[in-house]
Amino acid sequence: MYMIQFLPHEKKIEVQDGEYLIRAALEAGVHINASCGGEGVCGKCRVLIENGDVGEGISEKLSEEDIKKGYRLACKARVKSDLVVRIPVESAIDRSVLNMPATPRKTARISQMNMDDLKEKGLFVPPVEKKYLELPVPTAQDNLPDVTRLVSFLKLNHGEHGLIVDLPVIRKIPEVIRKKDFKITATLVRPVHDERKSQIVNVEAGDTTDKNYAIAIDVGTTTIYGQLIDLNTGESISEYGDFNGQISYGEDVITRIMYAEKHNGLEKIHQVVIETINRIIDRIVKKADIDRDEISTITLAGNTTMTQLLLKINPRYIRRAPYVPASTMYAPIRAVTLGIELGDHAFALVYPAISSYVGGDIVAGVMGSGMYLSEELTLYLDIGTNAEIVIGNKDWFACAACSAGPAFEGGGIQFGMRAAKGAIEDFSIDPVTLEPMIMTIGNVRPKGICGSGLIIMVAIMFEMGIISSSGKFDRDIDTPRIRENDGLCEYVLAWADETQIDRDLVLTEIDIDNLIRAKGAIYSGCQTLLDEVGMSINDIDRIFLAGGFGSYVDLEKAMTIGLLPEIDPEKVTFIGNGSLMGAKMSSLTNRIRKDVVQVTRMMTNFELSETPSFMDHYVSALFLPHTDINQFPRLKARLAQRREMKKQLENTNSQI
Amino acid sequence: MYMIQFLPHEKKIEVQDGEYLIRAALEAGVHINASCGGEGVCGKCRVLIENGDVGEGISEKLSEEDIKKGYRLACKARVKSDLVVRIPVESAIDRSVLNMPATPRKTARISQMNMDDLKEKGLFVPPVEKKYLELPVPTAQDNLPDVTRLVSFLKLNHGEHGLIVDLPVIRKIPEVIRKKDFKITATLVRPVHDERKSQIVNVEAGDTTDKNYAIAIDVGTTTIYGQLIDLNTGESISEYGDFNGQISYGEDVITRIMYAEKHNGLEKIHQVVIETINRIIDRIVKKADIDRDEISTITLAGNTTMTQLLLKINPRYIRRAPYVPASTMYAPIRAVTLGIELGDHAFALVYPAISSYVGGDIVAGVMGSGMYLSEELTLYLDIGTNAEIVIGNKDWFACAACSAGPAFEGGGIQFGMRAAKGAIEDFSIDPVTLEPMIMTIGNVRPKGICGSGLIIMVAIMFEMGIISSSGKFDRDIDTPRIRENDGLCEYVLAWADETQIDRDLVLTEIDIDNLIRAKGAIYSGCQTLLDEVGMSINDIDRIFLAGGFGSYVDLEKAMTIGLLPEIDPEKVTFIGNGSLMGAKMSSLTNRIRKDVVQVTRMMTNFELSETPSFMDHYVSALFLPHTDINQFPRLKARLAQRREMKKQLENTNSQI
Repeated sequence: MYMIQFLPHEKKIEVQDGEYLIRAALEAGVHINASCGGEGVCGKCRVLIENGDVGEGISEKLSEEDIKKGYRLACKARVKSDLVVRIPVESAIDRSVLNMPATPRKTARISQMNMDDLKEKGLFVPPVEKKYLELPVPTAQDNLPDVTRLVSFLKLNHGEHGLIVDLPVIRKIPEVIRKKDFKITATLVRPVHDERKSQIVNVEAGDTTDKNYAIAIDVGTTTIYGQLIDLNTGESISEYGDFNGQISYGEDVITRIMYAEKHNGLEKIHQVVIETINRIIDRIVKKADIDRDEISTITLAGNTTMTQLLLKINPRYIRRAPYVPASTMYAPIRAVTLGIELGDHAFALVYPAISSYVGGDIVAGVMGSGMYLSEELTLYLDIGTNAEIVIGNKDWFACAACSAGPAFEGGGIQFGMRAAKGAIEDFSIDPVTLEPMIMTIGNVRPKGICGSGLIIMVAIMFEMGIISSSGKFDRDIDTPRIRENDGLCEYVLAWADETQIDRDLVLTEIDIDNLIRAKGAIYSGCQTLLDEVGMSINDIDRIFLAGGFGSYVDLEKAMTIGLLPEIDPEKVTFIGNGSLMGAKMSSLTNRIRKDVVQVTRMMTNFELSETPSFMDHYVSALFLPHTDINQFPRLKARLAQRREMKKQLENTNSQI
Repeated sequence: MYMIQFLPHEKKIEVQDGEYLIRAALEAGVHINASCGGEGVCGKCRVLIENGDVGEGISEKLSEEDIKKGYRLACKARVKSDLVVRIPVESAIDRSVLNMPATPRKTARISQMNMDDLKEKGLFVPPVEKKYLELPVPTAQDNLPDVTRLVSFLKLNHGEHGLIVDLPVIRKIPEVIRKKDFKITATLVRPVHDERKSQIVNVEAGDTTDKNYAIAIDVGTTTIYGQLIDLNTGESISEYGDFNGQISYGEDVITRIMYAEKHNGLEKIHQVVIETINRIIDRIVKKADIDRDEISTITLAGNTTMTQLLLKINPRYIRRAPYVPASTMYAPIRAVTLGIELGDHAFALVYPAISSYVGGDIVAGVMGSGMYLSEELTLYLDIGTNAEIVIGNKDWFACAACSAGPAFEGGGIQFGMRAAKGAIEDFSIDPVTLEPMIMTIGNVRPKGICGSGLIIMVAIMFEMGIISSSGKFDRDIDTPRIRENDGLCEYVLAWADETQIDRDLVLTEIDIDNLIRAKGAIYSGCQTLLDEVGMSINDIDRIFLAGGFGSYVDLEKAMTIGLLPEIDPEKVTFIGNGSLMGAKMSSLTNRIRKDVVQVTRMMTNFELSETPSFMDHYVSALFLPHTDINQFPRLKARLAQRREMKKQLENTNSQI
């Protein structure tokens, strides 16, 4: 780690060896003009290295003289030692705003359950166990049937009573048992319900106890992730994600359902998701270089529609009032019967759901995050096209879902795109010149805006007064970056020649409006649910943020626009892909599989469309951050301070 | 019913209207010479109708004068009134033997469990029940998942707790439930074990409770029988039997196992038996004119090899010492997974076995006959190529199997054949002329001898002294019917021109020897098993005879040759196809499905090959009826009486 000091700002930050200087500046809240996303072609991000070594950062955009003096392009220069870096400023005015308070930057703590934790809490009850057995060899006096020999031995020597052995296993036993002279390894699946029986799902010749794997799958509407888990160590040993092949049949769950309603549509769309899952399994198995037959169990979590399509259950009534799913609980099933290419013996567990719009992915997150075991009152929020909200602790749960629309995934935004290479993911603006600093994923010239970038730019421009609380640009500002188009304003993030798309890349008032609607839905969803359970945001001990979106979002910015309620950022934990985490955790411990039934029973589902206060909350939330600024006291204070400083600045300027 | 009086024998018998006169004579123990099996071509069975009316019986074999006098062919004449019939006898000698005691004729009582019996005993616990339900229609306030709606309703209104619903049913529910406005019929399968849960296996729109069927299948090595059972009435509503398609791959279980060991052999031979079962199901469903989807359950019983082939489990180790089956217990399984063409929801139950050679067919017989509920000590005997023997009552069971060889099915007998058209099934002999009276199945000219016919002819000829206790013909008898061939004697049952085969149809000493070996194996098996449990035949309260063979066998004749131990014939009950009966009974009442686990645990299997006394018993049994005639006191008395009468006759004759 090296210490970087930025001048004249007097701001310091510690970063890792090799980090790009421009990223360090962003992290420190230091603005450097930059239009090309970090590709190094705009040449605007000249900085002077006053002390220390940087790697690279030399470009034809710099004159030889500049290079000799120590100028480098911040977007290309990599930190190689402690540094003192001076940012060129154009005027005294520029200098004077340096002391303005930077909007705090804060992404959430990342947390996942781990095995040690589980063992400590007595939660490590592996759902699949292997036992190595040296059975007595049959004789004329002892010619018990093979299955009886195995079952009796397990009963007498391992205290395993009432074991179930299904036909596919019985078919294997006679040959396998004799391959290594009646020395075998039996794979036992523990029942989810205590009153049920354990089941022998596989037998292998010799001792294979060291090879015992599980697969966890998050079946997302857009992306499917898989993890291969070593059940002996609890480690994830390989991982792979791929687009859900169903995307060709519709972007969102509603269009998928409509496709499934067509003739043969369900069969087709079911096959497609199974194909994606098989492709992912193939990858993670090859990556880890294990034998597919050593996988004993697969756990899948997805939203209610994805789950029904996965299981080939007509999802028709999910999208029609009163929004009835076929089922929310599914018994374990042999994976092969779904078309999943695993051994005959591998069982598939599918996470139970709550309702048509609070699915198994959310339940998985609630289970995997461990919030169901905690005293602390937790708000669990999974943000995607739909946002699912769960509030509760070990004693009770309430949940709701709302449609955020696709803004957070780039939908409905003129230059919106998914969080992929070329998407603007970070942003800063010079408060005087209003020149932007844009950073893209992959450090290439920008081609669009992703959700987290959108939030950051709207938050910053709102806090600087460039955008009003109703989401309109200040028309009095004199800069070519802000221009009017058919009565609507837009801000030019990058000029055509700085982009990959040969057009000016802009943020429009329509984009801002869509973002406000999306964040308004989520915020009012949280408010409504809190109301329904008679609580306020102050009662919440912590927030768990789930979903791919959550991993990038700047917490303070999300609170600034009113997407999240204002809460101590320390109380916010990003749990990543909650669905995948839950699927993994329940592969590791049967306790979760048992508890989940109880949790789903405890959970009260609120249909927001049926809750009268929801619409009031929603309308109030259609502002930045909200009609009631008092709900955002920290922001209110920052805005007041900024107004004060601005007034002082204007006075100073008029005195000069 | 009409009364027939035979003269000069002074024997009377009551028979049904339309019965053939020759059958009535056989039944009464009256010998009438007859060589053509009842086809009416030998013309030997001339009888004089002294009183009463017969239908038919006129033939070109009778002169016009004879016809006028009232002569008829007994094999063609049908009883139409009470009759007095005189059998022409050739001499005083003939006449004098008329008073010799006839070997008693006695086939066993036929008995099957019935529904009233079951209900009376509290055993009628249908394993599959249909319930008609009028569910509440979902609303915005009550939008429970469809499955939850169904399960909760059954819980609240029918006291059904913890119901299991599998994926194939879940897939049907959303559409079916809405077809008749949430009025549906649910099919519930009861668990075999009390601690397990009931399962919803089907849903149908509207009220279909009146349509609830089961199928029972006996998977025999040679023949497969199926019955369709109405679960509302307990009646069998159609039935069909067909040869097991596996016959082309081998006649007996050993050759089938050998075929299954070949490459793809198991797959092939499995498919073939499933095809036969599907053909039978197709027939019985069409015969009864029901919808295949209304069948909720199928129960199959077969010997251990047939069961493993049916379930596609390698039977390799069944035929190799120490004769280990793969399993003897099988969990219920969806019929479709075996390839059986029933609805997705139909469950298949396979009867558990005891050992490699005491299979599910025998267990089915033990269960279906109800012997496992009785105080009475019962000997259950199923005779085929293999004979299985069970001894026990409600408290304990012992069982064993022995290889009888194929003699009872016509195998190893020069003119042996299955019990089919043209097989000699009944026999009598003139004690003086030694002319035979032969009756064939279908009343056609003979083409062979079936098992029951073989027993009758050997028994009669043994009792008349024509065959010795070591199975040899008396070479001193002067008749063209008995002739020597390479040192071995044979008896001509029918001359070439009286047969369908254009050869003399004979019974050879080798045939007799094979029969003795077969009956010896069975008798000694019973003896050995009785010895092992410390009992004698006198302790046995009753005998249950199962198997196709048992239905035709004359009990007294079977005792005469020493196939069965000598016991009061009233104590013998023929239960027919015990395997099919058991399969049917367990379709009707779950009690049997529950009890069978206990019964198989109670049953001690004896491997006769491992029991030292078996060989001694076997050698002693290789005589007619046995080396120890004292084990057959009734026969001993008859033989003594016959010897006495013969002596008197000879004295009389020498006096004449």
